[in-house]
Amino acid sequence: MSTSPIPAADPPPGRDLARLFAPRSIAVIGASASPDKAGHAMTVALDDFPNLHPVNPRAGRINGRRAYRTVGEIPERVDLAILAVPPAAVARTVAECARAGVGAVLVCSGGFAESGPAGTALQDELRAVVASSGIRLLGPNTSGFVHPAARARANFMPSVGELRPGPVGIIAQSGGMNLALSFLLHADDIGISLAVGLGNAVDVDFVDVLDHLAHDEDTTVIALHIEGVRDGRALADAVRRATAVKPVVALKVGRADVGDFARSHTGALTGDWTLARAALRQAGAVVVDTLGELVDAVAALAHRRLPALFDPGVAVVTGQAGPGLLVADRLRATGTRLPPLTESTTARLAELLPPLTYQRNPVDTGRPDTTFPQVVEAVGADPRIDATLVYTLQEAGTPDTVAHLAEERHACTVFVTGGLDRDVLPQRTALRAAGIPVYTAPERGVTGLRALLDDAHARALGRMSAIVVPTDPTGPAVPDRGALDEDQAKTVLAGLGLRSPRRIVASTHARAHAAMAELGNPVVVKLCDARVLHKSDIDAVHVGVATRADLDHALRRIDAAGIDASPRYLLEELAPAGTELIVGAVRDASFGPFVLLGVGGVDVATQAPPAVRAAPLSRAEAREMYRQLPEPVRAGARGRAPVPEEETITLLVGLGRLMTENPHVGEVDINPVRATAEGLLALDAVILPHRSPDRGSTSHRG
Amino acid sequence: MSTSPIPAADPPPGRDLARLFAPRSIAVIGASASPDKAGHAMTVALDDFPNLHPVNPRAGRINGRRAYRTVGEIPERVDLAILAVPPAAVARTVAECARAGVGAVLVCSGGFAESGPAGTALQDELRAVVASSGIRLLGPNTSGFVHPAARARANFMPSVGELRPGPVGIIAQSGGMNLALSFLLHADDIGISLAVGLGNAVDVDFVDVLDHLAHDEDTTVIALHIEGVRDGRALADAVRRATAVKPVVALKVGRADVGDFARSHTGALTGDWTLARAALRQAGAVVVDTLGELVDAVAALAHRRLPALFDPGVAVVTGQAGPGLLVADRLRATGTRLPPLTESTTARLAELLPPLTYQRNPVDTGRPDTTFPQVVEAVGADPRIDATLVYTLQEAGTPDTVAHLAEERHACTVFVTGGLDRDVLPQRTALRAAGIPVYTAPERGVTGLRALLDDAHARALGRMSAIVVPTDPTGPAVPDRGALDEDQAKTVLAGLGLRSPRRIVASTHARAHAAMAELGNPVVVKLCDARVLHKSDIDAVHVGVATRADLDHALRRIDAAGIDASPRYLLEELAPAGTELIVGAVRDASFGPFVLLGVGGVDVATQAPPAVRAAPLSRAEAREMYRQLPEPVRAGARGRAPVPEEETITLLVGLGRLMTENPHVGEVDINPVRATAEGLLALDAVILPHRSPDRGSTSHRG
Repeated sequence: MSTSPIPAADPPPGRDLARLFAPRSIAVIGASASPDKAGHAMTVALDDFPNLHPVNPRAGRINGRRAYRTVGEIPERVDLAILAVPPAAVARTVAECARAGVGAVLVCSGGFAESGPAGTALQDELRAVVASSGIRLLGPNTSGFVHPAARARANFMPSVGELRPGPVGIIAQSGGMNLALSFLLHADDIGISLAVGLGNAVDVDFVDVLDHLAHDEDTTVIALHIEGVRDGRALADAVRRATAVKPVVALKVGRADVGDFARSHTGALTGDWTLARAALRQAGAVVVDTLGELVDAVAALAHRRLPALFDPGVAVVTGQAGPGLLVADRLRATGTRLPPLTESTTARLAELLPPLTYQRNPVDTGRPDTTFPQVVEAVGADPRIDATLVYTLQEAGTPDTVAHLAEERHACTVFVTGGLDRDVLPQRTALRAAGIPVYTAPERGVTGLRALLDDAHARALGRMSAIVVPTDPTGPAVPDRGALDEDQAKTVLAGLGLRSPRRIVASTHARAHAAMAELGNPVVVKLCDARVLHKSDIDAVHVGVATRADLDHALRRIDAAGIDASPRYLLEELAPAGTELIVGAVRDASFGPFVLLGVGGVDVATQAPPAVRAAPLSRAEAREMYRQLPEPVRAGARGRAPVPEEETITLLVGLGRLMTENPHVGEVDINPVRATAEGLLALDAVILPHRSPDRGSTSHRG
Repeated sequence: MSTSPIPAADPPPGRDLARLFAPRSIAVIGASASPDKAGHAMTVALDDFPNLHPVNPRAGRINGRRAYRTVGEIPERVDLAILAVPPAAVARTVAECARAGVGAVLVCSGGFAESGPAGTALQDELRAVVASSGIRLLGPNTSGFVHPAARARANFMPSVGELRPGPVGIIAQSGGMNLALSFLLHADDIGISLAVGLGNAVDVDFVDVLDHLAHDEDTTVIALHIEGVRDGRALADAVRRATAVKPVVALKVGRADVGDFARSHTGALTGDWTLARAALRQAGAVVVDTLGELVDAVAALAHRRLPALFDPGVAVVTGQAGPGLLVADRLRATGTRLPPLTESTTARLAELLPPLTYQRNPVDTGRPDTTFPQVVEAVGADPRIDATLVYTLQEAGTPDTVAHLAEERHACTVFVTGGLDRDVLPQRTALRAAGIPVYTAPERGVTGLRALLDDAHARALGRMSAIVVPTDPTGPAVPDRGALDEDQAKTVLAGLGLRSPRRIVASTHARAHAAMAELGNPVVVKLCDARVLHKSDIDAVHVGVATRADLDHALRRIDAAGIDASPRYLLEELAPAGTELIVGAVRDASFGPFVLLGVGGVDVATQAPPAVRAAPLSRAEAREMYRQLPEPVRAGARGRAPVPEEETITLLVGLGRLMTENPHVGEVDINPVRATAEGLLALDAVILPHRSPDRGSTSHRG
């Protein structure tokens, strides 16, 4: 074993991952000639890698190659060492590699933090070695990575050798998901630039690999599989850097997780999963729901990226009415706009198509004949249309159509076709070569098109949001002394321009009577105590108090709630009628602050889910939140005041800044905000401190 | 041309479709030797059908067979005639076929009702010929049908000849969808018993083919593609008959259709699509959202059907944690119950698995080794588990696992696997042969398992609902004289046992004052007029009227609304506080009456969608509706009264009977029903007459 000292980490370790993912020489430490050892499988998997060096204390020959007793004995510089040693020996072996000048190590074995306290200690030891030596480490507890173009298959599973080079970079939190996704892409004839399973991510994490793939020339699209992340903000920033260059598609697991996030009303309205998705979407990622959707989205974005489009118009051209109707229905159900074609396009279609067909949008050609390519071209040229989905069943004559579509790639954005594989597959190859993604199931084509549209929309929104750092003075400072009661919270919110009804806090019954005299009756009388989140639950909210007797009754009820021996009372003018909203903010331990907007009222938990955006947010992003309110609420149905758009946007943006500038604030809950004829009014509010991040720890899995 | 008279329809035409779908002899009328004619393509498509007879006025030989000048000249009995003649000649040719004793005709060509008034006239003529002759007709405007086992491919598309015989019967409203689905099943190596595109369905429709397939021995599962149907009730009844024998999976198109159904508040809460899906689900069908889900559901149900299970417990066993987590997340998100395993199962797993793995539910085995089949068996034997989804990536050793799973088919309900096709496909064949459906994408496996569970649940619910015809006396008769005002509606609803606050109708101000004196103040004062659906919109609802001056003010405001020169006033006791629901019923032109239950309040349009069931409904079905209410509403959060379960169920069942027994009632809107400490109270109600069915006409497409 080499006894040379660990080289000083000078210069500090670069973030470059070339020696890890594109190694010129690989050592397998723990290589073995016996087939039941992991070290054997790895040696075999890398059989066709030229500079492979087995390391085994007994030396000799393994799988036809000379084995070395230690990594230090290998005569050439080793870029990557793959460790097939027991967990307890990993940290020591990594230190040895660092001393020998190895660039990076891969640790596949489990038995670290995912397995309990003893494993956590081993992982801490490993982390210390990595930090002090500057060596890069992938894992532990991962299936490794696959880099087909470099023949580097650092993975125990033999069939990964069949994976083809291609445009998709994969970063999966789980090594198993990395493989599952790679094989699904392979089955759709889509190749891989680099597929990485992060495992416990002691060193190399999402951010490192995202930055690496963003600059990797072979990668045209990046696929992410995310379970939980320690630093969601850093992930979102890396996604933002990457999407400036190439599209990113993200699958976030954990929809059904409830977590321990339900600590107050606003928090209970959403969960980690929703917040993470909102943050990823804002960072420019296309967010999908299933592994199949991940494949379909990647299949589209690997081949083309639309220009930035804020509100794209989509056309459907179909050779068969039934499937065309299905596609159009699904597009509409996913929020896609299918505008009617212009008159000049319709006139052109009337020349090209028999009179019985439907010639608006969707355009039904009847069984496609020789004019089909011209129909697609005419529709694609319509000024209202930014993207066209074309459907045909494979029939006699369609091969010419395909050749023509491939030439005129601007006219057809996504092609969906039905038929036998023997007819469909050659077309798929030709069209993909021309940059047209091809699907055989209608909804899969819709997923592909939606991915192109979502990516285009995110970039358009990103441009509108380019400056999120405000140039005006900073927002209100929030006192850092725990929970703020309603009076204090409303004072803070007034600094954002959010008004409240005129109010007086009284500490005795006599002062409360004086306050009512000053405010003029009727008034609202409430307990003023930061410890009580739901005052009406304990009968501590009394609306329409109009007489001295009413007031005495209300004060006695508040006293009877028994929260405090000498409670404080908040007396407030009665607010005018209006539409009730809930506006709030929460701080996620991983992804940072978020702003929420939803429909208010007592039964807020039964309403449609609120709109959520990560803070800070731009006016364009806040406007999207406003537009997510149900239309009858925005418009103020039933004679009530409409919700003022610009004032609401200003409040949301301000609340985002408040969260960004006051990291000690954990949650703001303004429930309700009432939209009245005179504008927005906060009727109740509470501001809670940020709890220490005792949640949000990453759960690592193999 | 034969001039013999049309044979008398005596005995009346049976509903048997054997001569159509399993013909022993076929004539192609309009057969042609020139390759650009449809009649040529059809002759070629049927090339290997033994008893094929081309018919062409010029006779001669076509595609090597003797052609006859007329169908009457064919010497043997013709079961099926396929017409390749222009639309205007179709009715005449069908009549000729009927005279010649032909059993059934297929008309593929379009140009009928789907194309405008002239086509509608041709279709009416065709319908008359079919009705008077008793001949069966499929189409017009369809791609035909495929019956692979009989080599009967009555379809213009040549590649349908490749479709293999198998267990799936398809009934598609659109001929294009019939083909698209057939090819998607083919790509998944799933064969077809009979695939039918109904087209305009002048004669043979969903009901005919459902009844046919329900009794077809080769069919183990039926797939439906539905756009719109004329008689949804008859369809639902046929689905109920079929699901008693074999599973039915339905894809209903039209989610994004808004329709003209928004005529009042309750109606606006839902659409045709939702109603149709509710009716199909109640009839026992598994309802899916996409064509891909239709394939995945059919793939599961073609191979096995679970016993009737009301609330099945599901386990996940996985070889890789990441994909297992994804599967479990998706199962939970789709409402699947994953109970913890019993202690004895956990103890058995502790013997079989290394200590680091997760052994509850999901069960993570780590990379699967030789104990994997025993783990699956132990989990499958757990008394809390009714179905098990197994996931593994293909690795060395898994073939044995598969062989073992195939033997122990009771232990593994659905198998999901990742890997290369060359590894996966042989396993798929072996497992399917053993009745275990196999998928390569996690969410597709979840769709398959959900289909098995939904089918099992529907049968369990069906048994609980077996007697939906009530044995107690009939419900209240509703007067058939147009819209009922609030007073009349509440009187009718009282007959269902639904109480309302004490009320008096007054026709003058003086009588209103007397009514207030009798009721005791404060009261609610409302306009009583069946023409006004939303009284509060015109300031015609006044709550908390406590003084004579208040009452005068309220009456003047109602007068000022100007609905009637001498309006009637409804005075009512103030109801106690409670939880507000909306309860209603609507009558769909196609699927008949439905009952709705949702969360009430002013902003009802912003709430989660209501529960919907077709009427009449059983108590078990009504209980499922009740359980769809958000939990905080049911439980009466915030100190309000809970919603009484049995009383709500009784109201829903009664409302269903009211709709069934009073076909002139179009809609009942009880908004709100308030759940108080003393039970349910109707605070407002309206009953509207049924409009003539000027909507719901079938849209037929090719």
